[in-house]
Order: sequence, then C-alpha cells, then structure tokens
Amino acid sequence: MMNYPLTLPHLLERARLIHGSAEIVSRMPDKSLHRYTYDDFVRRAKSLAKALIQAGLRKGDRVGTLMWNHYVHLEAYFGIPVSGGVLHTLNLRLHPDEIAYIAGHAEDRFLIVDDVLLPLLKRFEDKLRVEKIIVVPLTGQPVPEPYTDYEAFIAGAGSPDDFEYPDLDEQDALGMCYTSGTTGRPKGVVYSHRSMILHSFACAMTDTMGLSIKDSAMPVVPMFHVNAWGLPFTLTMVGSKQVYPGPHLDPVSLLELMQHEQVTFAAGVPTIWFGILQELEKNPGHWKLQDGLRTAVGGSAAPESMLRGMDRHGVRVIHAWGMTETAPVGTVGILKPHLLKRSEDEQYAWRAKQGIPVPFVEIRVVGENGEAPWDGKSMGELEVRGPWVAAAYHNLPDGSDSFTEDGWFRTGDVATIDEEGYMKITDRTKDLIKSGGEWISSVDLENAIMAHPAVKEAAVVGISHPKWQERPLAVVVKKEGADLTLEGLHAFLAPKFAKWWLPDEMVFVDEIPRTSAGKFLKSRLREEYKDLYSGGSAS
Amino acid sequence: MMNYPLTLPHLLERARLIHGSAEIVSRMPDKSLHRYTYDDFVRRAKSLAKALIQAGLRKGDRVGTLMWNHYVHLEAYFGIPVSGGVLHTLNLRLHPDEIAYIAGHAEDRFLIVDDVLLPLLKRFEDKLRVEKIIVVPLTGQPVPEPYTDYEAFIAGAGSPDDFEYPDLDEQDALGMCYTSGTTGRPKGVVYSHRSMILHSFACAMTDTMGLSIKDSAMPVVPMFHVNAWGLPFTLTMVGSKQVYPGPHLDPVSLLELMQHEQVTFAAGVPTIWFGILQELEKNPGHWKLQDGLRTAVGGSAAPESMLRGMDRHGVRVIHAWGMTETAPVGTVGILKPHLLKRSEDEQYAWRAKQGIPVPFVEIRVVGENGEAPWDGKSMGELEVRGPWVAAAYHNLPDGSDSFTEDGWFRTGDVATIDEEGYMKITDRTKDLIKSGGEWISSVDLENAIMAHPAVKEAAVVGISHPKWQERPLAVVVKKEGADLTLEGLHAFLAPKFAKWWLPDEMVFVDEIPRTSAGKFLKSRLREEYKDLYSGGSAS
Repeated sequence: MMNYPLTLPHLLERARLIHGSAEIVSRMPDKSLHRYTYDDFVRRAKSLAKALIQAGLRKGDRVGTLMWNHYVHLEAYFGIPVSGGVLHTLNLRLHPDEIAYIAGHAEDRFLIVDDVLLPLLKRFEDKLRVEKIIVVPLTGQPVPEPYTDYEAFIAGAGSPDDFEYPDLDEQDALGMCYTSGTTGRPKGVVYSHRSMILHSFACAMTDTMGLSIKDSAMPVVPMFHVNAWGLPFTLTMVGSKQVYPGPHLDPVSLLELMQHEQVTFAAGVPTIWFGILQELEKNPGHWKLQDGLRTAVGGSAAPESMLRGMDRHGVRVIHAWGMTETAPVGTVGILKPHLLKRSEDEQYAWRAKQGIPVPFVEIRVVGENGEAPWDGKSMGELEVRGPWVAAAYHNLPDGSDSFTEDGWFRTGDVATIDEEGYMKITDRTKDLIKSGGEWISSVDLENAIMAHPAVKEAAVVGISHPKWQERPLAVVVKKEGADLTLEGLHAFLAPKFAKWWLPDEMVFVDEIPRTSAGKFLKSRLREEYKDLYSGGSAS
Repeated sequence: MMNYPLTLPHLLERARLIHGSAEIVSRMPDKSLHRYTYDDFVRRAKSLAKALIQAGLRKGDRVGTLMWNHYVHLEAYFGIPVSGGVLHTLNLRLHPDEIAYIAGHAEDRFLIVDDVLLPLLKRFEDKLRVEKIIVVPLTGQPVPEPYTDYEAFIAGAGSPDDFEYPDLDEQDALGMCYTSGTTGRPKGVVYSHRSMILHSFACAMTDTMGLSIKDSAMPVVPMFHVNAWGLPFTLTMVGSKQVYPGPHLDPVSLLELMQHEQVTFAAGVPTIWFGILQELEKNPGHWKLQDGLRTAVGGSAAPESMLRGMDRHGVRVIHAWGMTETAPVGTVGILKPHLLKRSEDEQYAWRAKQGIPVPFVEIRVVGENGEAPWDGKSMGELEVRGPWVAAAYHNLPDGSDSFTEDGWFRTGDVATIDEEGYMKITDRTKDLIKSGGEWISSVDLENAIMAHPAVKEAAVVGISHPKWQERPLAVVVKKEGADLTLEGLHAFLAPKFAKWWLPDEMVFVDEIPRTSAGKFLKSRLREEYKDLYSGGSAS
C-alpha cells in the first residue's frame, strides 16, 4: 500500500477540488451574515499559510488565536497547520492572567485576534511575548497601530496558487489546547495531524455524528474549546455547509440562525440547549426548525430531562463524552437496535449514559481492586486509550501521574460500564461524595433533581460532616414563580435513591457558578458552604 | 498523542466487548440458516489464530481460503490476520489451473476449504504445495482423510481466553487478493492492517456506505472478490448484523434471505441486481423488503436503467467504483445537495457517474497532453493515490508500469472528471474504440442500448475496419419475445450520440461472456467477430 500520510493538506485540497461550491456562513459582530464558498476559504487559508512562512514561521512554531467562531478562525484552523505551524486556540473566557500564562507556556510566536476582542487583549498584552499580533477587522474599522491587519497580511502574500505545502509527517503537531482545569495550572495537549484525521473519520461515521455533505452544520461549541470538538476538520472533510454563530450565543440569536440557514446539525454544551429548550417552550410553534434536526451535546452530561424536552420538539440529541485529552470524542450514546425495543423510560436511561466508545477508543474503569467488571454498578476511575488520546502534557514533566504505566490516560472521571459496553460518568473523582465509607454520585443526584418541575438547575456537592465524613448538599436554581421544600425534594427523590443518598440540606441561589467551559464550578460551592454541616456556618 | 496502531486485534476485541450480542447469520449449502453472535465469532476467530500458531504459522505466512460467504470465512478474515498470518482469498470462479498458479505464486502455506468445494479442489490439488489443508464441514459430513477438520483444528487449540495477540505493526500485511485480469497473469495486491482500517473508516462514513449498528447488512459480493469490498471488516467495526448468503446467489434465494433477515443494506455487482430487479418486476407486491433498503453496486458500472428500476421498487442504489488495487472503494456516487435541485433526468445522469472520491483518495485523469482538465469531457487514463491504494504488486518486478514516477496508480480505466469532481468511467483503456482518429466510448453506447425496452443486456466492442481503423459492433441479448432491428436501434440512439458513434452492425447472442468477477469478457467478443468488418468473416 502507498505511504500516504494522514495530514491536513489533503483535506484542504479536497475542499477546493470536490467541495469548492459548498457554503460557509458566519455571523458577524453586527449580526450581519458573511457568506463565502469553500473555494474562497481554501484560497485564503493558503494565503495565510504563505504569509506566515514569509513572516518567518518555522515548522512547529505555535500561533495563538483569540477568536470567536467564524470563517477567519476556520482559515486559521487550516492555514496555520498547513504552513507547518501549530494552531493554539486561546480560551477567551479565562481570566486574562490565565490566558497570558497559557500563551507564555506554549511560547506562542504569533497571535491572531478578533478586533472586537482587543479590549480583552489589552488586559494581558503587557504580559505577552509574541512577535507579531495580527488583528482581524471583523467590524470593518481600521486596525490600530502597532498591530498587523489580517487582510493586509494575507493579501501581502500574493496569489495562493503557487503555495507549496511544506513536508509534513502525520506525527507532526497540528494544534494544541489547554485544559481549563478548575484545580492547578492549565495543561497543554498537543494534537498531531494523524490524530485529528483519525478523529474526523470516527466523527463522520453514521453512528457517531453521522455528518453528511447534505448537512447544514452549526458548531456552537467554541472554536477555542477543544477545537470545537474537531468539527471544523470533520465538516470540511465531509463537505457540509458550515454555519458559525460568531459572538451571538443567546438562544434567540442561535434559533434565528438555525432557522435562516436551515441547520440540520448543531453542537454545544448542555447550557446552550437548556436555553434553547426554554425559548422553544415559551413560544410554541414560533420557531421553524428542520425536520430531523440533530444536536450533539457534550462537555458535561445531558440530563434525561433535556433528552425528553428536546424530543418533544423533534430535536434528536446525540449524547457524547470526551475531554481535551481525547481530542475530544470518546464515547457516543447511540442505542443498539435491541435496546430500541425496551420501554421508553429504559431507553431514556440508556441515552442519558455517555454511551459506547467509538472505534479505536478503548475504555476501562479502575477501582481500588483493579479493573472493575462491566456490570453497570462497579465504580472506578475511567481510563482511556486510543490514537487520538494524549500520551503526555506539553512541557509538563510532573504531569505523568495522569498516565498509567501500561499506557492509559486517567480521566479523573468516576464511571461505570455496563454489560453492553455503555459507560456512565457518575462523577469527577474529586466530586464524589464519601458518606460513612460509601460513595454517593453527585451527578446522579443533580440530574434527578433537575427533573423536578420547580427546578431550573441544580448542583450537588459533598460538604464535610463531623459524623459521616461528607454529606450531600443540594444547590438549586428555582424556576420563575416555582417553589420547593426539602421535604418535597426528598419525596421526589425517594423512589430512585437509597435514603442515605438524599441531601441533608438544600440552598437556593440565582445562578450556579460555572467554569469557562460551562461546567459547574463545584470547588467554589464547596468552599462557600464548607462549614454548613460542621456548625461553623453563619446560617 | 498515543502511539496506537491501526491493527485488526482492536476490532476483534471491540466486537466482543461492545457488540457481543449482535448477530451473524449464514446460509448453509442445504439452505438452512446458521446463526450465532459476535461473541461466538470472536471466540472462534481467536481459536483459529491460536491453532494456526500452534501449527507453526510464522508472521507473514500466507493462508489461503477457498470458501463461500459465511461465518467460517468471517472467522478466517479475522483469525488469520490476528495470528500474524496473511489472509489470501482464492477466487473459486477462476479456472482450476489459475487458482493453482495463484496459490503457488502467493506461496500459501495453509489452505482452508469448504467441504462443498472439495470437488473443485481435487481438480488442482496435485499442483498445490501447501503444508496443510483444513476442511470446513459445512454439510456435517465427516471430513475425509488426509484433510484436517476445521472444527477439530480450532477445538484442539483449547480455550481462546488465554490467546495473546502477537506484536503487529500497522504496516504489517493483513491480506492479499489477486486481480482477475483478462489479460496476462493474475497480479497480487497486499493489504496492510493500516490500509484496511482506514478503508473501513471511509466506508462507514454517512456519505460512503452509511453503515450503522442498526443495519442488517448482506454482502452478496463474494468474500473471494476484493475482500467482499472490505465489508466484513467495516461491518464488524460498526457492529451491524451480518447476513451471508453462502453459495445461494440466485435472485429468489437472495430475496428470501433479505426478507427473512430484514436486510437494510446489501452489496453486489450489477448482474446480481439485474436478476433481482427482474424478479421484483415479475412478481409485483410479492416481496416485502425493508423501507429504505440500500444496495451498494460496484465492480462494473450501474447503468441508469438499473438506477431507475431500483428506485421504482424503493431500493436506493449506492453507486461505487473501485478496484482490487484500491482496497476497493475509491469513489461513491453521492449527490451534492445542490444537484438534488436539478431535474430528475439530470440527477440520474449524475448518479450514473462513478461519483466523487472518498476522503484521502485522490483522482486525476491523464491524457496524451498530461493531466486533463476537470470539464466532464476530456478523457484520459484514470490515476489514483491514497493510503489504501497499492504501491506495487506482490513479487512482480515488471509490474512497475502500472505506477507512475510521481507515485500514482494507473487504473487502466478511461475516465472524465467534471467541474464538481464527479468521475465517470468511459471505458477500459483497451476497450476504447478508435474510429477515424477519434475515440468512441463502448461503455456509453452499451449503457444507452441497455435502456432500450427490447434489450436485456448489451456489450459494444471495437472491430478492425479497413477504412476507419475500428468501428463499433453491438452484441445484444434480447428480452424474451422482443425484437429489434439495426434501424430501430439507430433511431433510438440518434438523439444521444453523434452519427459516427452508432454501431455499424448488431448481432444477437443468448448470453454475453463474462469474467469470473461478472464483468463483460470483451476480449472474447473481439476475437469472435474480429473479421466482421474486414470481409474475412464467414457470414
């Protein structure tokens, strides 16, 4: 067989040759729509690659991006790697100091920034050591000194027609992302060309994302968050129409765009879909979405109540699990045909699990007594391996305790695997509640609480307890006008859980604090209520 | 990223862990159905691997198979490669001398044979130099001396639980097939583990075969013909129900099996679907097939009349192109969304093309003046490259004229590529007709002739002509009770072709000779009618 490398230039040339007339639509800061074709995109991505090389980029140099989801970011997704550079997406939701730390740790040599994000850049620019800052004039305003104007930068490279791809090995670095860990310093994961191509093949499979040339696909998940789950690569491989929402991520803006661009596939974290679901319920019949619309949901678990809610509106949820370290897609909650014969309630219970691993991802659960059986009950830490799973962190010699001696990545998630191979995250290792020597899953509890009609959102955390070591606390956001008592909550939960699992207390809040990736920031809740059960609390 | 090889043991372990309860159904020689699960299959495949190693198999040794499509052949598909051996499927439709030549050229060390094929084996057994012949007792009859009984062979290996996979590199050989060329000696193509895994990912994509865990999939294409288009690997990766028709390939037997096993996907050469189509038309309403049934058609072109016929019966044809040297899937005739807005006739014309290349396959057409433009008109030899395309033939130093200096495989097909990237085979290089210095496509003519209501099948060949160098001859099989004149044929073809394309003569035959792979054996027709236009003919 031919020695043909799995590298990004193939996808870019394919995009031009085979999918040249397919469309890419982006929402601009002023809410107008920018439209162009794959052919336009490829020409500009190659111009960017040419310009970077002319600016002195050497193979392996990191190029940072601080951008929303739009066509220029897509150009960077391809233009940087095919120049031999490494695409390093910076998470604009992090604290400015943290962004500066990450750009410094990665040693970003160039940086591409949306002009609308210049106010954010200014908050940490003095801490940066990048050689050149290239600003994308999304608003049409002139780019201020001393920055380089993106449009002038790529135009200065001359025609893309004579661009020659550098020699790339499939093991060469394509990009990197930092984990937005809630503890410790962010850690960098480097993706190879090979890993992203294989990940794209796995995601394009019918039983993963089922992406097609016929799809109009909208990645809501930010391009600064695990490469928007790799979708810009997968969609370009498949030739789908691509729809990017820019900075407008409120439910009404997203629904408008989905309706206008006849979106058939969207992807985002549960928070996004909670908002959309509420808007759909508030205005029944108002939104005309495509028949068979699919939404990939990941980043954190899609509770059963969301699956049921989306089904009511004819939207099929593809429930997936992954991490920055797994590129990210690891498992998908597709139902096997024989499970489709079970009762509706049972089917929802299976669909609320994180699903079966995609081909070439291996999973196992390791407890105190070694590998746990696949019985759907035995909990342990989830470990993963495969060709798109990290083997190490970038420049972090002491990160090695995340990897086992026999070559698996330790996810820090606590999970079970059932007889059918369906994995279910029961908690983060650090979020498990240890009560009287037994484990309580905070995730199971909060998903059940979120099914209560009075509850908008809920988090459960373990709080130190003088007698039981830890006991669960429910932190609840009520729906407008609704009310709830602890006794009412207990009555609601009692049929599903052992009595000792039920939260001892419930507190109401306006909002549950979240990480920049939209996950519950439980460390803050634990800190806030740490004395609640030990008598040291003010209340 | 982890250094995780793309090898077959992953798929086999995945089949056990994730898809253990999925079904594999095989039709036996006595027409009974054999059923078992993926779990049974994996245990037996590992037993086979263990038994082969115990019998002395060393890494890289070739193991021949002479078998129909059924579960034991599937066991060989996995058991041989995961033992470190090379799966070498022998084409039982070839002449016995040729089978012996191929087994000798490949230096097959072991051979696995269906008991019902022993009469065939006996016709060339004296020419074989294999060490051990293992016979599968499909009929339940005792295996005669001196052969090894397959069931005793794998049972003798003991429990598969302690089988340890040998170290395999993804570049190691997995299998080999010989091309059933109509000219010259058969040539061997060796597939690596990597190439078959990547091919499986490409085939599982929504826009290729769209295979799903929910499919009940029937490979009619023989497992001795380019690995049944790789389907046994792809289906096992996806976890589909697998249905194998054994030796019963007549339309009624196939339809019975499709109906009984609720087949949703089938794959085979056009001849198979012509037969099925005739049976469906003969007995309207009799056969209850699954809604949305898809059939992959390849091996030779699916004429437009077949696409229309299948559509009438609610069967969607996936038109694909490939060769032994391309593993085989290279292009698929999926319609881009904007083409779905064209007229019905135009859509059929696009669908009758061989389609766009799947990701990581590159195509180009090279004429006398170098690479031809993608204009849908310029013809030239189709050249291909990609990670599942052959780079050389097995032990054939003089096969190098099939590969260009810049690393492309020369297919021997004459093709055009249009602006959208759709490739259309116009002929085999050797089947093009050269008339008065211009080219005539025999394939275009015969596809048009096959749309005539009086025609069952037709082949067109170029015959030497004293004035024009060559002129087309139509060789036609009439439908029962129908009739046709040369004038009538000309009138039918005139709207579609220049006058000088029309065949000068038409002859009727009962049957068009075919190769073992079901393709027209045009060399025989050319030989038979070689003097027709030069006056040397008897008629």
